[in-house]
Amino acid sequence: MTISISSSKHDSAALDAADPLAAYVDLFVPGEHVVSYLDGNSLGRPLLATRARFDDFIVGDWGNRLIRSWDEQWMSLPLDLGDRIAAITLGAAAGQTVVADSTTVMLYKFVRAAVDARLASSDASRSEIVVDVANFPTDRYLVEGIAAERGLTLRWIEVDPDRGVTVEQVTDVVGDRTALVLLSHVDYRSGYVADIPAITAVAHEAGALVLWDLCHSAGVIPMQLDEWGVDLAVGCSYKYLNGGPGAPAFGYVAARLQGELVQPIQGWMGAADVFAMGPGYRPAEGMRRFISGTPPVVGMLAMQDMLDAIESAGIEAIRAKSLALTSHAFDLVEELLSEFGVGVVTPREEARRGSHVTITHPEFRAVTQTLWAQDVIPDFRNPDGIRLGLSPLSTSFAELRVGVEAIRTALLALR
Amino acid sequence: MTISISSSKHDSAALDAADPLAAYVDLFVPGEHVVSYLDGNSLGRPLLATRARFDDFIVGDWGNRLIRSWDEQWMSLPLDLGDRIAAITLGAAAGQTVVADSTTVMLYKFVRAAVDARLASSDASRSEIVVDVANFPTDRYLVEGIAAERGLTLRWIEVDPDRGVTVEQVTDVVGDRTALVLLSHVDYRSGYVADIPAITAVAHEAGALVLWDLCHSAGVIPMQLDEWGVDLAVGCSYKYLNGGPGAPAFGYVAARLQGELVQPIQGWMGAADVFAMGPGYRPAEGMRRFISGTPPVVGMLAMQDMLDAIESAGIEAIRAKSLALTSHAFDLVEELLSEFGVGVVTPREEARRGSHVTITHPEFRAVTQTLWAQDVIPDFRNPDGIRLGLSPLSTSFAELRVGVEAIRTALLALR
Repeated sequence: MTISISSSKHDSAALDAADPLAAYVDLFVPGEHVVSYLDGNSLGRPLLATRARFDDFIVGDWGNRLIRSWDEQWMSLPLDLGDRIAAITLGAAAGQTVVADSTTVMLYKFVRAAVDARLASSDASRSEIVVDVANFPTDRYLVEGIAAERGLTLRWIEVDPDRGVTVEQVTDVVGDRTALVLLSHVDYRSGYVADIPAITAVAHEAGALVLWDLCHSAGVIPMQLDEWGVDLAVGCSYKYLNGGPGAPAFGYVAARLQGELVQPIQGWMGAADVFAMGPGYRPAEGMRRFISGTPPVVGMLAMQDMLDAIESAGIEAIRAKSLALTSHAFDLVEELLSEFGVGVVTPREEARRGSHVTITHPEFRAVTQTLWAQDVIPDFRNPDGIRLGLSPLSTSFAELRVGVEAIRTALLALR
Repeated sequence: MTISISSSKHDSAALDAADPLAAYVDLFVPGEHVVSYLDGNSLGRPLLATRARFDDFIVGDWGNRLIRSWDEQWMSLPLDLGDRIAAITLGAAAGQTVVADSTTVMLYKFVRAAVDARLASSDASRSEIVVDVANFPTDRYLVEGIAAERGLTLRWIEVDPDRGVTVEQVTDVVGDRTALVLLSHVDYRSGYVADIPAITAVAHEAGALVLWDLCHSAGVIPMQLDEWGVDLAVGCSYKYLNGGPGAPAFGYVAARLQGELVQPIQGWMGAADVFAMGPGYRPAEGMRRFISGTPPVVGMLAMQDMLDAIESAGIEAIRAKSLALTSHAFDLVEELLSEFGVGVVTPREEARRGSHVTITHPEFRAVTQTLWAQDVIPDFRNPDGIRLGLSPLSTSFAELRVGVEAIRTALLALR
């Protein structure tokens, strides 16, 4: 059947032709068996440069420099890469960001460091952690465990799962018992963008620390963590930073807090003198104290190519294309899917939407299976959501159209 | 100057000619700029097959299967790889080993799981962790932190740092207050091999659990963890398993204990139903409950090539070559270095020595710097030790001789 294009804003090819970042798509490994990839918010695609990087690494830094590479570059890699991420997308000065562990483990260390510091201080009456019911499972599960082991109370914010946490909701729950507020910048389901500066200010007025989960914003949304007064943040590198499946997390601790926070997983790489190997753990000064074990060097390679690309394109331009892509997604869903009763969860306000658009339909579980078999790859989220994840440097407007058209075709076939 | 070969046992070339595993050296990336690599106990060399594996991965599983690879193989990779390590070197049945995190983080989770289970049980009076003063810094630092946070006492075994922990020493300290014994199988400095079955039996008689650090034995020493009744074990994959710098750890929990042990870093990948994403953490059955965050897939690639090689060669044959290499190291040190007063720390008894030989001399810090600049790469250990790490599949007898001759030359130059 023919779809009538109702206006020029629905013209994907024209949008690609006018896109100043269009050429970046060619930096990525071609999806020879991929018709449309709409899951860059879950797993970013590899860059072509990553192929040569790995081969050079295996033959060179690993295969020939061997153990000497630790002295030459690997020991400082967690902090060097952290500083790059900080400069490129976090809006943070050097010396406050480190790459290590999984997001879950980094969150554990930061939550523990924050609440333990409060419990050990004159603020020991601050025995509550504020978290929202729609946060990503790891964040919720983690603080459940920590609350149980440290004798803390969880204060749950009942956010609208189709939106996200608001300034008003946080204002209502923080107070003189709040030790820490743990929230996500971009809601992993709805794509709603929380107001970091306003919420951080509210938490600080109540005397609480805030830990932001940046998994769905790092690499697509320009942030100003220093300016916003953020205390702690954690994010993952395999989504919009294209570090590869299970690539390590990054973590940010404001310089003013580093001296008073001590994380609980005391390993050799976080000790003041790594190779003295003497008795008694003494944490390093600065961000290195948040490292525990041997840095996951192999897992830190691929993201470097994406950081090069983001730096070259500029995070503001990437955000602009992200907004254009999500806007196009709204248009295409209206044009192609509205007749099936497909719902749109993601907010339309520019300031409140991230880089994925979540749509709902009771048949989306089956539809996703059909699409995957056709090499059209969005992400299914229980119980009835499809996330259209739009990674600005690797996703074209035409690719998005192909994906939404395939959803239409699959829904038509179910009629 | 000419070195007289005192007997045929000093003939490195003849030993290589008679070595049934000699051809395995050709499986590794050639050290074009490496004269002698004697640090496989710290960082194993990459295999040639790993170059193709990474490239295939980037283009295929990551670049084209994309997110679908999680369903197709990556979700089960931590357990699949764990089972392979278990079969190849641990002597453990399937379903008890997982690959995840760093060694430090895995140790933290296992120590916490073990002591928390005791604190929660009728054995709550068991409030001591036994550890030895010569253990690797991470192991010592970790339990210091855990003891402080859980209100436990550390019982330190004062082992001879030139040897390692003995059955008698453990017998003397374990008792009805011991919750956990944490020891290393192979001492990272002396190379001494602790008697796992006897020490485990002694600890069990006292009602304690034992956690073995296998970092310096996995891949070079055949073990029988199931038969020996070991409770928990952790090891790293970047030494004799050649997983690359910072490759993730493996962890073993005996099947009989999995139901009662819960680790504290509650993440989505350890939950009973990963993708339900509902409220409330409920740990998965079996080993998956010891996973926290997203599995570090990129870091789990390279070790697979070494596991193939170990499986093909056989761990018993690898142990035999390891003993031949360390024996040759003793002979070469005596022949070439004894006149300089170089000491040998590593025990000569076969059952008590691992796969590295530690020698000492006051000038070894300077000597190591000289050697590294000459592409001869042993490992320096504070204050005066050189470790000759002998990775049986990648190290030839001739390469060992070249390295020891270079130490001799460097010492001569300092005269």
